[in-house]
Amino acid sequence: MRHPATGVLLGVVLALVLGLDPPAAADRGGPSPAGEVLPVLGAARAVDLTHAIDEKTPHWPGARYHPFRRETIATLGEDGVFSETFCLPAHLGTHIDAPNHFVAGRRAVDDLPVEHQAGEAVVIDISARVAEDPDALLTPADLAAFEKAHGAIPKEAIVLIRTGWAGRAGDLAAYAARDDEGRMHFPGLSLEAATLLSERPVRGVGIDTLSIDRGLSTGFEAHKTLAAAEIYVLENLNERLADLPPRGALLVALPMKVRGGSGGPCRVVAWVPR
Amino acid sequence: MRHPATGVLLGVVLALVLGLDPPAAADRGGPSPAGEVLPVLGAARAVDLTHAIDEKTPHWPGARYHPFRRETIATLGEDGVFSETFCLPAHLGTHIDAPNHFVAGRRAVDDLPVEHQAGEAVVIDISARVAEDPDALLTPADLAAFEKAHGAIPKEAIVLIRTGWAGRAGDLAAYAARDDEGRMHFPGLSLEAATLLSERPVRGVGIDTLSIDRGLSTGFEAHKTLAAAEIYVLENLNERLADLPPRGALLVALPMKVRGGSGGPCRVVAWVPR
Repeated sequence: MRHPATGVLLGVVLALVLGLDPPAAADRGGPSPAGEVLPVLGAARAVDLTHAIDEKTPHWPGARYHPFRRETIATLGEDGVFSETFCLPAHLGTHIDAPNHFVAGRRAVDDLPVEHQAGEAVVIDISARVAEDPDALLTPADLAAFEKAHGAIPKEAIVLIRTGWAGRAGDLAAYAARDDEGRMHFPGLSLEAATLLSERPVRGVGIDTLSIDRGLSTGFEAHKTLAAAEIYVLENLNERLADLPPRGALLVALPMKVRGGSGGPCRVVAWVPR
Repeated sequence: MRHPATGVLLGVVLALVLGLDPPAAADRGGPSPAGEVLPVLGAARAVDLTHAIDEKTPHWPGARYHPFRRETIATLGEDGVFSETFCLPAHLGTHIDAPNHFVAGRRAVDDLPVEHQAGEAVVIDISARVAEDPDALLTPADLAAFEKAHGAIPKEAIVLIRTGWAGRAGDLAAYAARDDEGRMHFPGLSLEAATLLSERPVRGVGIDTLSIDRGLSTGFEAHKTLAAAEIYVLENLNERLADLPPRGALLVALPMKVRGGSGGPCRVVAWVPR
């Protein structure tokens, strides 16, 4: 049987057919969020889209940003406990940009409704074009082609752009890909496609590069368009984005909850069909 | 209709009754993790059990620990972007203790399987006893009484201990509750109950205080017992733990993924029946 939840659900359906109310949630082990969801998660495959953080983890290469730093403040040998302190830019590794990162008055990271942090992952793969052109943009034509093949991108989806760039994340020079004049060359989301997504509106947009705006961008138009619409951004997703189907994966993206913060480290996990 | 997922599921059940295979996962918008789970989450209420982090957020009051620090490294007014850096002890605010925090050779925070970070929340409330005795411990008798009332604690559950202490988290002196000799007085988990949970074994154990071991503990027996069994610990859960039922809530606890880390900030969210 391919649906482990079917037993519980058969009971619910039979109850409806027989004119009975389904059992109250969490009553005597009856239907409950855990009872309904965990069999589905157990039948799926969990895919962690998050880079592990260490001193080599990429961060936005802006002024006053610095690599991850850590200090061991207690050890099992000397103190009986292993403990550390961490210092990092908010926008390092796999992280979230809250809308207030680019637009005044928009939500801070601790104000993002947790209900918006779970949704269907819609994965648009432009890696073939990126392999030919590192400055490639996801355009409205890509959105139209995706929707023709896979159906309309649902309102409340979390759209993930796969560019294939994550394979470079271990080599900062290759990941930022600066030319002789210091301009970066990595792919991103066009202003026009960002505008379409902000009108849907989707909940969030993610990418496997340093920034939702491509390396050549100086105006950060995609960031600003999404932020104005209260859409969060996930950056530096890892190479396992290749393991997600175009539709149907469950995505959960839970950030560190810094009061008033512009963003922060975010754990991004997908459950995909086996 | 109380079960928004029923429509999809009815289709699955009918397919089974009619001898058809259920549609392939994620095939043409058919059953998929997102399609099966999101209606359940949407019908539930999301409860964020995570304290927002700021300079007053409690941390373990050990030597070389320090409060949360932040620095603004860019502003919308001057730079066109708002950005920050953060410094914090790993064990500050709502956080996870990885098993390697107390036992050599056990899992670091980045090695915790993400599959173990979602489970049924089993909430054991000892707040009435704690109101009389801040040194109270959750004991094997409490586990037995809970199981008599609510059924066996499932293997793979995440057990959350509600002591009522979270209401003090805004006042560090009241939260640590030191006496004139510097000993702390807040409740915790007994060694004997930790041993029973480690034999089950559950996936994780959480509490709404500074430590899973009570304030008077000097040997950290509960920590060590759970860590030896590869069970993670969630500490400083917030006051919304009162909103969870004893059984049936879905818990997702996703930590910052520091390579080899002893723990770190963890976003803890429950979905409870409305």
